Amino acid sequence: MARIVMKFGGTSVAGIERLRIVAERVKREVDAGHQIAVVVSAMAGETNRLVDLCREAAPLHDLREYDAVVASGEQVTSGLLALCLQNIGVTARSFQGWQVPIHTDGLHGQARIERIDPDLMVQRMEEGHVCVCAGFQGIADTGRITTLGRGGSDLSAVALAAALKADRCDIFTDVTGVFTTDPRIEPKARKLDQITYEEMLEMASLGAKVLQTRSVAAAMTHGVRLQVLSSFEDQPGTMVVDEEEIVEKQVVSGIAPSRDEAKITLVKVADKPGVAAAVFGPLAEAAINVDMIVQNVSEDGKSTDMTFTLPRGDLDRAVAVLEKSRADIEYERLIADADVAKISVIGVGMRTHTGVASTMFAALAERGINVQVISTSEIKVSVLIAEEYTELAVRALHAAYGLEAAAGK
Amino acid sequence: MARIVMKFGGTSVAGIERLRIVAERVKREVDAGHQIAVVVSAMAGETNRLVDLCREAAPLHDLREYDAVVASGEQVTSGLLALCLQNIGVTARSFQGWQVPIHTDGLHGQARIERIDPDLMVQRMEEGHVCVCAGFQGIADTGRITTLGRGGSDLSAVALAAALKADRCDIFTDVTGVFTTDPRIEPKARKLDQITYEEMLEMASLGAKVLQTRSVAAAMTHGVRLQVLSSFEDQPGTMVVDEEEIVEKQVVSGIAPSRDEAKITLVKVADKPGVAAAVFGPLAEAAINVDMIVQNVSEDGKSTDMTFTLPRGDLDRAVAVLEKSRADIEYERLIADADVAKISVIGVGMRTHTGVASTMFAALAERGINVQVISTSEIKVSVLIAEEYTELAVRALHAAYGLEAAAGK
Repeated sequence: MARIVMKFGGTSVAGIERLRIVAERVKREVDAGHQIAVVVSAMAGETNRLVDLCREAAPLHDLREYDAVVASGEQVTSGLLALCLQNIGVTARSFQGWQVPIHTDGLHGQARIERIDPDLMVQRMEEGHVCVCAGFQGIADTGRITTLGRGGSDLSAVALAAALKADRCDIFTDVTGVFTTDPRIEPKARKLDQITYEEMLEMASLGAKVLQTRSVAAAMTHGVRLQVLSSFEDQPGTMVVDEEEIVEKQVVSGIAPSRDEAKITLVKVADKPGVAAAVFGPLAEAAINVDMIVQNVSEDGKSTDMTFTLPRGDLDRAVAVLEKSRADIEYERLIADADVAKISVIGVGMRTHTGVASTMFAALAERGINVQVISTSEIKVSVLIAEEYTELAVRALHAAYGLEAAAGK
Repeated sequence: MARIVMKFGGTSVAGIERLRIVAERVKREVDAGHQIAVVVSAMAGETNRLVDLCREAAPLHDLREYDAVVASGEQVTSGLLALCLQNIGVTARSFQGWQVPIHTDGLHGQARIERIDPDLMVQRMEEGHVCVCAGFQGIADTGRITTLGRGGSDLSAVALAAALKADRCDIFTDVTGVFTTDPRIEPKARKLDQITYEEMLEMASLGAKVLQTRSVAAAMTHGVRLQVLSSFEDQPGTMVVDEEEIVEKQVVSGIAPSRDEAKITLVKVADKPGVAAAVFGPLAEAAINVDMIVQNVSEDGKSTDMTFTLPRGDLDRAVAVLEKSRADIEYERLIADADVAKISVIGVGMRTHTGVASTMFAALAERGINVQVISTSEIKVSVLIAEEYTELAVRALHAAYGLEAAAGK
């Protein structure tokens, strides 16, 4: 007997027919003798509909009212799934965030879970009830409904799994697991049986939108064993676990491409103290998130070139900000480039294995791909390349690290 | 300064454009210096949509889950109206049933309000906030969401007005008030400035669907001054008040026609003790609500004819029940008639004035309308006639009691 939290996203619960499939999936775990809590999102499209109504009502809307309106989407799904479960003979009841209760701070629209009182839910589970919890929501100390921000249902599931001391938290999505790279780019991409939290965090923050970053971080903090799997196919997914749990470690687990990148180069920036602050201060004030930064060694001791990357959607704003600050920064020319992509090689094995970066550079050089910027972390090497080489680079690296083969390298 | 509860139904809140009109209406009362609580229904059509989803999920649905799903409709409207109010500079916040809290019994799907703790809402109103309360819902002692049954938002408004000790409870509808009769039948029908609770109760139970019967009864019990008025036109409506408040009493306030009637006559029923029980027992068991009953004096001491009315939709079932019980009841023949209508003359003045019934019979006889069954109560005389005479009878009676004239008779 295990205690399992199962989370189903918007596509999996869009309509009664899909809820029936979800109910059958839950019933199989119940029949296997497990204690089950389910976390559900709003039906696909419903949250957008409610958000649009709020925007129409008041362009600058009070987030407390926004939360009351938007949380109703998950409320509906939780009740309907409980009904579908009862309809096939499974004892079930719904819980709203305030009924569990899931206590959050008062930051409406993007609240943080502070604590969960699991007693009532545990009692019901021990009586054999499936507890269907509305995701994405909680209650503030003021007694008002809060929501956790988009994608927050993953976080609800992980936090609930931690509070319930669940053996596993299964996140059902529309993919069958986490892959060595994007299968639309490299058909030889292979589903990973296991991945570490840290690798998953890098994958998520690099745009592999399987799991919300905050929920992976929470799972790591609380030691919740996560599984990513398909709600449409009945097969094991990818387990996200602690590094110690992985017996046969891969040096490299995956190749993550990101096209949401742009590059700015400031040519001949005055090489004087405080220039970095003059560049990045105004960008930070404009809430523009700068990623890779490279500053060349000054040749003449007077000026240098500075290059950095940022999300593509922020490029125009960033250029405007930097042109406004031109007098403070003192640069000769600004070059903006939206046609770049970031390719990252990720793997906890890098900590103990050398040669990962040089394998990367050799593979790219062999295909004539020019590396514009490099950045590294403990478990990741990222390079910026011209966007048109994205697919070629991904396939070259996938082969170079032998990721299509099942065995560890 | 008055304290007013304003209630808006589904048609008045169907979409943001209508909510803006409602918000303007509320603002006028705020600008006049009043303390305002608003009760809202779900947007027109929304409750039906949610009910259909529940039915699709589970034909025999758990009413606790049904309540959680269906209550979301009012939740959405309450938040959106608060946003629309804020958008025109009115301080406002939403309250769900459980946030007020509105305590109900545990009879899910048709719960009864047991008590309301008005302290938080009173505090907010005294601080100048408009409190927008989701109608139709409350919370049971179990901590689960309950709903009050269809049309329950009227009841929410009245109960809230009682708890808040409000000076008035304004029910905004799609008609401008309560009329002396149905204006679609008699164009000379006149809007009443005032009507007593008891008259309104008779009107409501006779099918004048302006106010839900339970809410009128609750208003009478708690002495809540109700006003029925239009949410689309800006003019005073009809005040529903205590008899003592009405200065110039009408003998007759209105003529209420009801076409939802059918008649059954049992010919030559055995005239023996227990026969009424043999007839009406099985009908009661089948949840068929019998209204007017007439039993003629037995001529031969052996058998009599028995006639009664019932809702038209129950006629076929009633006939089946009675044919099954034929041996017990012992009757010669059963005559079923769906082509009948009930016309009622209503007025508290009847208590002190005589001749109301005879005026009625004379007016009907003059038009050659045959009276099939008669029943009377303290403030009402009802007759059953052939349905085809409905309009003629209504107009004849409206004229006979001088209802088109504004002055009391």
